[in-house]
Amino acid sequence: MTFLDHRGLRTALSAFFKSRTYEFGIVALIALNAALLGAETFSSMENAMGGFLDLANDAIAVIFVIEMILKILAFRHVFFRDPWNWFDLTVIAISIAPANEAFASLRALRALRLLRLVTVLPSLRRVVEGFLKALPSLGSIMLLLALLLFVFSVMGTKLFGTEHPEAFGTLGASAFSLFSVMTLEGWPDLAREIMRTHPVAWVFFITFIVLSSWVVLNLVIGVVVDSMQSHAREQEEELEIAILRNQAKMMEEIEAIRREISALDATTSAPKQ
Amino acid sequence: MTFLDHRGLRTALSAFFKSRTYEFGIVALIALNAALLGAETFSSMENAMGGFLDLANDAIAVIFVIEMILKILAFRHVFFRDPWNWFDLTVIAISIAPANEAFASLRALRALRLLRLVTVLPSLRRVVEGFLKALPSLGSIMLLLALLLFVFSVMGTKLFGTEHPEAFGTLGASAFSLFSVMTLEGWPDLAREIMRTHPVAWVFFITFIVLSSWVVLNLVIGVVVDSMQSHAREQEEELEIAILRNQAKMMEEIEAIRREISALDATTSAPKQ
Amino acid sequence: MTFLDHRGLRTALSAFFKSRTYEFGIVALIALNAALLGAETFSSMENAMGGFLDLANDAIAVIFVIEMILKILAFRHVFFRDPWNWFDLTVIAISIAPANEAFASLRALRALRLLRLVTVLPSLRRVVEGFLKALPSLGSIMLLLALLLFVFSVMGTKLFGTEHPEAFGTLGASAFSLFSVMTLEGWPDLAREIMRTHPVAWVFFITFIVLSSWVVLNLVIGVVVDSMQSHAREQEEELEIAILRNQAKMMEEIEAIRREISALDATTSAPKQ
Amino acid sequence: MTFLDHRGLRTALSAFFKSRTYEFGIVALIALNAALLGAETFSSMENAMGGFLDLANDAIAVIFVIEMILKILAFRHVFFRDPWNWFDLTVIAISIAPANEAFASLRALRALRLLRLVTVLPSLRRVVEGFLKALPSLGSIMLLLALLLFVFSVMGTKLFGTEHPEAFGTLGASAFSLFSVMTLEGWPDLAREIMRTHPVAWVFFITFIVLSSWVVLNLVIGVVVDSMQSHAREQEEELEIAILRNQAKMMEEIEAIRREISALDATTSAPKQ
Repeated sequence: MTFLDHRGLRTALSAFFKSRTYEFGIVALIALNAALLGAETFSSMENAMGGFLDLANDAIAVIFVIEMILKILAFRHVFFRDPWNWFDLTVIAISIAPANEAFASLRALRALRLLRLVTVLPSLRRVVEGFLKALPSLGSIMLLLALLLFVFSVMGTKLFGTEHPEAFGTLGASAFSLFSVMTLEGWPDLAREIMRTHPVAWVFFITFIVLSSWVVLNLVIGVVVDSMQSHAREQEEELEIAILRNQAKMMEEIEAIRREISALDATTSAPKQ
Repeated sequence: MTFLDHRGLRTALSAFFKSRTYEFGIVALIALNAALLGAETFSSMENAMGGFLDLANDAIAVIFVIEMILKILAFRHVFFRDPWNWFDLTVIAISIAPANEAFASLRALRALRLLRLVTVLPSLRRVVEGFLKALPSLGSIMLLLALLLFVFSVMGTKLFGTEHPEAFGTLGASAFSLFSVMTLEGWPDLAREIMRTHPVAWVFFITFIVLSSWVVLNLVIGVVVDSMQSHAREQEEELEIAILRNQAKMMEEIEAIRREISALDATTSAPKQ
Repeated sequence: MTFLDHRGLRTALSAFFKSRTYEFGIVALIALNAALLGAETFSSMENAMGGFLDLANDAIAVIFVIEMILKILAFRHVFFRDPWNWFDLTVIAISIAPANEAFASLRALRALRLLRLVTVLPSLRRVVEGFLKALPSLGSIMLLLALLLFVFSVMGTKLFGTEHPEAFGTLGASAFSLFSVMTLEGWPDLAREIMRTHPVAWVFFITFIVLSSWVVLNLVIGVVVDSMQSHAREQEEELEIAILRNQAKMMEEIEAIRREISALDATTSAPKQ
Repeated sequence: MTFLDHRGLRTALSAFFKSRTYEFGIVALIALNAALLGAETFSSMENAMGGFLDLANDAIAVIFVIEMILKILAFRHVFFRDPWNWFDLTVIAISIAPANEAFASLRALRALRLLRLVTVLPSLRRVVEGFLKALPSLGSIMLLLALLLFVFSVMGTKLFGTEHPEAFGTLGASAFSLFSVMTLEGWPDLAREIMRTHPVAWVFFITFIVLSSWVVLNLVIGVVVDSMQSHAREQEEELEIAILRNQAKMMEEIEAIRREISALDATTSAPKQ
């Protein structure tokens, strides 16, 4: 591919990848892909023109792959520095893989290709980046939540496992049950069922609900506080920085006055000598 | 309708439409309409005096239509600039339409007429305007939510559609099921049912719950931040603007002093020459 | 009761009603009442010593009535100005009434007497007052919520009433069903049941869920914003008021300087004439 | 244990307990313990090597006990001042106890030992301390919630106890039912069941839901406000304190000017005498 070493071509390509035409084209392609995926779900359409739908799907996949190759050639090592490019690569790789395989159900992963919309639309990308930025500060709370879930899963499995194998038979079943209790969904039914064999099981459930709600609440507060501060900071500081700037100007003036008075002092007292 | 070209009449009409008498009259009419609609739902009353209720309902509809016509004549093109007038027109049109039709069930839309209360009461109108003002800034997050729902609906239909036709048979059924999962309602039952045929389906459900909760949380935060800032701004700025105004006055004073000192300097040093 | 006209006795009484001894005594009485009420719920205890429990309950009621009478005699018309006294009167009146009646189930209202704890403990009273203070500003949003519930109840009754009498048979049944949908509880089951006869009923349910969640969210935000501002105001203003006070002092100083310079100007230029 | 009276050894021990090596070692031990506890829940592993798992578990327990003894010897009375040490002691004591007993189910409490992770990791400890700090200011609201739950439990038991023994038979059953209603879980089903015998029971349920949601909302707001203020204070005050500091400097300058002017006034007017 020596022709791509030609700088002019690379410049033209990278200009194209930054143009609105390219953005619009990809959005249109994703919309078309969404329509195709939607059409596939109707069995009548699938039967009538399944071959065409498959062909169109493959065509879009090929276009996406070519796009990625051209982008790598255009931006070279810079391409791999942007995490969003890695996201695109992963999503395309996952959505292509099943097309080559026998497992029909894996073809469902083709729908992930639509997530490229996030990479292409700057407004969506900003929203997701905002989400991700909040994550690190929530690490400790999420670790605490995981610890809580694990400790209660182990205890649940040992306490109720033999009598209630469906809900607490294995560590995984317990974790699933307790996750659903954490979402408060159907917990009274589950608790009542366990309480038939273990009358004091309500202590287990209510303790878990109170503790996990508390941690989840703090997780939510973490996100809210984080999001609010970044918003508040921009706004509020504006006014206060104006106040500070005014103070600096005033200080200058006052110092100038002091200097002039000193000078004045010198001139008025000088003749007295 | 040449008599309405007469400016005096139009002025009188628009004055009337801005009066408290008019506001009170419409609120009373809406309350009466609500009472009538409530009465209709009791089959005993419906049987005993269904004819009267229908008549009264039609009478109110006629009054509302006349009101709209008079308003258009009074305000002319200005009428169509206010989106609330469009809201009124739409609501009245929808609520009248079924009265002329054979479809009995469409008569239920007559209840929408009560929503005119929002247009008439300024306090309600302000609340709804506050809601709508927050919408544009939430556009990206809502698009993200729609994308998430669509991608998971397509995947759900392909993965579980054949084995669980009721919940995931069509794209619409999947979207409905996933919307209910998003509200966390009954999701463990649904997930357990799917897990009987697809043991790893919990990955699908828990991923969807975590992602959609995250996006919904950010949607809520968006509304909260938006609402808080508009409140906070008014309040807080008050004090800070007072500080800034004081600074401006002080600056003037200081500059005046400097000018006087310069003058003083001139007078004291002048005789020395 | 002329002896109560004696000012000394009244002063002593009102001093007593403001003392910690009185507060402690009432709290102890309420705690005792709570224990009695708890004991009554155990059928074994009810059988063994139901007579004693009834007697003790009546004794406490009598004490509370005497307390109210003494308070009225002590504070006279001032007593009726404090809404908390009205709350106490109502609660005691309600809790006594059933004791005289044949309806056994009304005796359950005796438990309301425990709510007097709120009146007695200043910290609880402050919390409840905080709740109530937020109410007026939420009036419009609550009216909107009621309007939404009413409009959808009327529509639900007319649309689904004949086919689903249990959930939407009467206006009351519809309001109850929609209130439960508003809490998101069991709505997918209800919606699926209705959708069996009305396939497009999902539009009704999802519209209602989105709108009511939106209004409830704004209700919550209203409470949050209200609560936060009253907290934030106290704190933040402190610093800013310090800044303003400093500015005032500075301004005085600057004006003093200006006056002195003017004086100086006068003295230095005076001899030149 | 006279050798521990030797100061050098104690200093070395306390230095070790503050080192990263110690922290890392305990985290590794807890991770190992978690893996063992997880392994125990798989019945196949439990059968194959239950003896080894038990032995390993006991070994870790012994290490933890020795750690506690050494810590007490190293820090002496200072050890008992830190509430986190009490937490560790309690958790270890609880997790050891069942190992000596016949009750197999109590062995589940061994999982609590993993909670020591909170004590060891400073970031987790800070999160939990943040939670606990918010508690005292929420005391009144939690008392109110408890009062509400108790009053409604007593009323529920008396009103519905005889007809619905499972949900409202005893005070405990009522409290459990109402706690589940408070989490909004399955309340419409419960309410509908009660309403079959008590048609006006919806008043009871809706009143309870509205009141308890209100109190819980205020509990959440309490946590949010508390958390936000501690964050906001740090940030915001920074700027305002800068403004205040500037004001102080400015004031000094202005006072200096005034002093100089007074001096100037003295020098200029002095010769006039």
